[in-house]
Amino acid sequence: MLKLYYGVGACSLASHLALEEAGAEYEAIRMDLKSGQQQTPDYLALNPKGRVPALVTDRGVITETPAILAYIAQTHRGANLAPLDDPFAFAELQAFNSYLCSTVHVSHAHGARGGRWADDAGALEAMKAKVTQNMTDNFSIIEKRMFKGPWVMGEAFSVGDAYLYTMANWLSRDGVDIARFPRVADHFKRMEARPAVAAVLADERRAA
Amino acid sequence: MLKLYYGVGACSLASHLALEEAGAEYEAIRMDLKSGQQQTPDYLALNPKGRVPALVTDRGVITETPAILAYIAQTHRGANLAPLDDPFAFAELQAFNSYLCSTVHVSHAHGARGGRWADDAGALEAMKAKVTQNMTDNFSIIEKRMFKGPWVMGEAFSVGDAYLYTMANWLSRDGVDIARFPRVADHFKRMEARPAVAAVLADERRAA
Repeated sequence: MLKLYYGVGACSLASHLALEEAGAEYEAIRMDLKSGQQQTPDYLALNPKGRVPALVTDRGVITETPAILAYIAQTHRGANLAPLDDPFAFAELQAFNSYLCSTVHVSHAHGARGGRWADDAGALEAMKAKVTQNMTDNFSIIEKRMFKGPWVMGEAFSVGDAYLYTMANWLSRDGVDIARFPRVADHFKRMEARPAVAAVLADERRAA
Repeated sequence: MLKLYYGVGACSLASHLALEEAGAEYEAIRMDLKSGQQQTPDYLALNPKGRVPALVTDRGVITETPAILAYIAQTHRGANLAPLDDPFAFAELQAFNSYLCSTVHVSHAHGARGGRWADDAGALEAMKAKVTQNMTDNFSIIEKRMFKGPWVMGEAFSVGDAYLYTMANWLSRDGVDIARFPRVADHFKRMEARPAVAAVLADERRAA
C-alpha cells in the first residue's frame, strides 16, 4: 500500500488530495515538522532532502509534488486526473504544476523559511517584506493567464486543481486577500465542496 | 516547426540539448536577457512570466523546463529520452528534474537574481554569501543519493542528463569546484563528448 508522509500546512496537501481523489489505497503518515521530525535519521534515509511530501511505493520512494501528482494520475487512470494521452495537454498541466513548485512555493517560503537562503536577520526581514507582493504577482498571472476554468486545465478536474488549492490556502497567511482573484476564489470554494477534499482536510485538521 | 526561445547561460540550455538529442526539427531563437528582451510586450504575450525557456508548438506555448523536457521525450519516443512506459521510473526522473528546478536553480538564482525576493542591498549580499554553501549541499545530495550512474537515471541517457549538465555548468560561477563531486564531474565530461551537446554549445556560444 502507498504511504504518504505529510506535514500539516505543507505542500504535501496536494499529494494527499490527489490520492483521495484517485480513490487510491494509501496510508497518510503525519510528520511533526515543528519538532523537526523530517530531519531525523530515519526520515533522511527515506528522503535525504528532509522535506515532505514523500510517497513510498512498492518500488521505492518518490519525492517532489509535481512528480508525485503525475505518478498518482498515471497509476490511477480510471480517476482521470491528468490528460495522459495528449502530450501537449499533459505538458500544460506539468507547466502549471512546475510554476507552483518552483515559483509560487518559493515566493511563499521566503516568509517563514528565509533561512534557507540567507543567515542575516535583516535579510530575513527583507525577504518577509516582499512575500505579499510576490504572491500577488504570481496569483495575478494564474488568474489572468493560466487558469482556464472552471478547473485549472478547463472542463476536466486534474491534479493541478489539488495543487492550486494547496497554494491558495497559503494566501491569507501571506497577507493576500484571495478575493483579489475572483476565479481562484471561486475555485477555492468549489474545491472545499468536493467530498474527497473535505475528507482530507478533516484528517489533516484532527488533533495529533 | 518547434521554436525554442533561449538565453545564453540560462536554464533553457537543458531544453535546447534535449531537442538536439531528440533529433527534433526546431528553431532556436536567442533572447538577449541582459537587455531585458524577455520583458518586452511581444515576449510577455508569449510567456507572461517573462522568462526562458518557452517552447512554441503548433498547439501553443509550453514553459517550465521539467514540462518541456517531458514533452520532448513524449513526442520523440524513438530517441528514448525518458522511461515513458514505466510510471515509477518516470516519476523518479520527474523528481530529479523537479529538484533541479525548484531547489538547485533557486539556490543558484539567489546569487544574481536575489532582487526577486528582497529589495534591500544588504539582503542581496547576504543571499549571495550563501550560494556556494547551498549549491554544495544540493550537489552533495545529487552525487551521493540521486545520481545512479553512468547517467542520471542509470544505464539509459535521459532528459535528466541534459538538465544536470545545465546546472553543473553553473557551479564554477557559484564558487563550487565540480571536482568535489567526482561522479558529477565525470558526467559533465562525458556530456561534452556527445555530438548533440557539442553542437548546441557551439550554437549558444557563437557571437550574437
